[in-house]
Amino acid sequence: MARGKSQTQRSRSYESDDHERGACEWCEYALVITLATILLIGVSALTVFWVFYYREGYAWADDLPDKQFNLHPTLMVAGFITFSGFSVLLYRICRCFRRIYVKLLHAIFHALAFPCIVIGFLAVLDYHNKKGINNFYSLHSWIGFVAMGLFGIQYAVGFFSFLLLLICNKGTAGFRASLVPIHAAFGILTFVLGVCACLTGLTEKALFSIGVERYSGMVDEGIIINAIGVACIAILAVVMYILSRNKFRTPESRGQHIRASVDL
Amino acid sequence: MARGKSQTQRSRSYESDDHERGACEWCEYALVITLATILLIGVSALTVFWVFYYREGYAWADDLPDKQFNLHPTLMVAGFITFSGFSVLLYRICRCFRRIYVKLLHAIFHALAFPCIVIGFLAVLDYHNKKGINNFYSLHSWIGFVAMGLFGIQYAVGFFSFLLLLICNKGTAGFRASLVPIHAAFGILTFVLGVCACLTGLTEKALFSIGVERYSGMVDEGIIINAIGVACIAILAVVMYILSRNKFRTPESRGQHIRASVDL
Repeated sequence: MARGKSQTQRSRSYESDDHERGACEWCEYALVITLATILLIGVSALTVFWVFYYREGYAWADDLPDKQFNLHPTLMVAGFITFSGFSVLLYRICRCFRRIYVKLLHAIFHALAFPCIVIGFLAVLDYHNKKGINNFYSLHSWIGFVAMGLFGIQYAVGFFSFLLLLICNKGTAGFRASLVPIHAAFGILTFVLGVCACLTGLTEKALFSIGVERYSGMVDEGIIINAIGVACIAILAVVMYILSRNKFRTPESRGQHIRASVDL
Repeated sequence: MARGKSQTQRSRSYESDDHERGACEWCEYALVITLATILLIGVSALTVFWVFYYREGYAWADDLPDKQFNLHPTLMVAGFITFSGFSVLLYRICRCFRRIYVKLLHAIFHALAFPCIVIGFLAVLDYHNKKGINNFYSLHSWIGFVAMGLFGIQYAVGFFSFLLLLICNKGTAGFRASLVPIHAAFGILTFVLGVCACLTGLTEKALFSIGVERYSGMVDEGIIINAIGVACIAILAVVMYILSRNKFRTPESRGQHIRASVDL
């Protein structure tokens, strides 16, 4: 009884809190969401620019393996960083949407990331086979392999649990609720692994394609590759900041978060 | 009045909650803390093993630049991963200590990391100068530079704010409390940057020292270097998991955390 009272009071406190949201808080929210959007689109745009300006664009042909390889960094950055990043942030961006629409958008953005990652992976696998290079020897490939595996498992679990199980909405509510923090934690881990894979991949690519002599001479292409890496890290920092700010949650999930803390 | 009542009730709920802490929760806590400890010590031990077994140990002499370079990965892993990792986790490991002792231990572990990072940096700077290699051209060096800068600023701010300002305990309480989340957020960012720097550095080292031919042939040294990288990522995942678990906080800071959430 006392507990029910305290909960009512708490939810009332959120409402008034929501109405009194200060200009400063909105400015901060708008600023970091805008920054994240610019970085997430910018990193893919910069990668495409790099490939067209310095690496002669794209192809998928037996006699043009290097152009085929170019699909790998572009699609992996798009899949693991841009689409996955937006997908993660949707729960903070679409705060006034109904939850089911946000979930669907989350699934759609991951559905866009999925072919990027699969084609990006096949592009480098086929490139290695054409050139007679071994697969899965480097730290980059190990990280990428785990990231892809986690992405696949997360997608399957998410699709099954949070969309398909809605057929039996009430019966599965407890199971779905208990799965949310696990799905979120592994989702963030996948994103972090994606960023780590990009950073090690960019380091490899700079040394393989530019060569240590020219790279250490600070040629323009080296700076562009470094800038892509810096953008990946900036995205990781901004995304983690947005996710850690309780103020940026929807009032509903903020309430759940606090209740979860109180109910420990 | 009602609010005071609800807070009393909440703090009572923590107490009973704390007493009833289940065996399962303690097992989880003990397991992840043990895992983190093994990984944090293991990654440094593995780096030392790698250097002695494959890279001929350490030196600081003009005629042995390669042995001097070996100080760089060893000290950076020790400083940015092992000591910093333990320092971050102290607030979850020493839950029954008085807060001031935890703070002092946190400062001491960072004080151990400090010379590691400085000497590790000077080792590679001197190595580059001896060999006539440019400095700060690679993505690894850019990430490392930012990580070192943040580490220095964090150390100075932390030492000044959380230890020196205790001279005027009451007068600075508000300022110190408001600084805690900023210091914690930038601390985690520094740790993530440290891990990213290690991963890109290991990739560079594998390609420079083993060479792409032997590295792609899966030689033992390549696997050891990859294992150091995997350990770094595992540490990042375990540390982030421990920090995200509200249950692992001290009851005191857990209360502060929840009050901060409720008071938004």
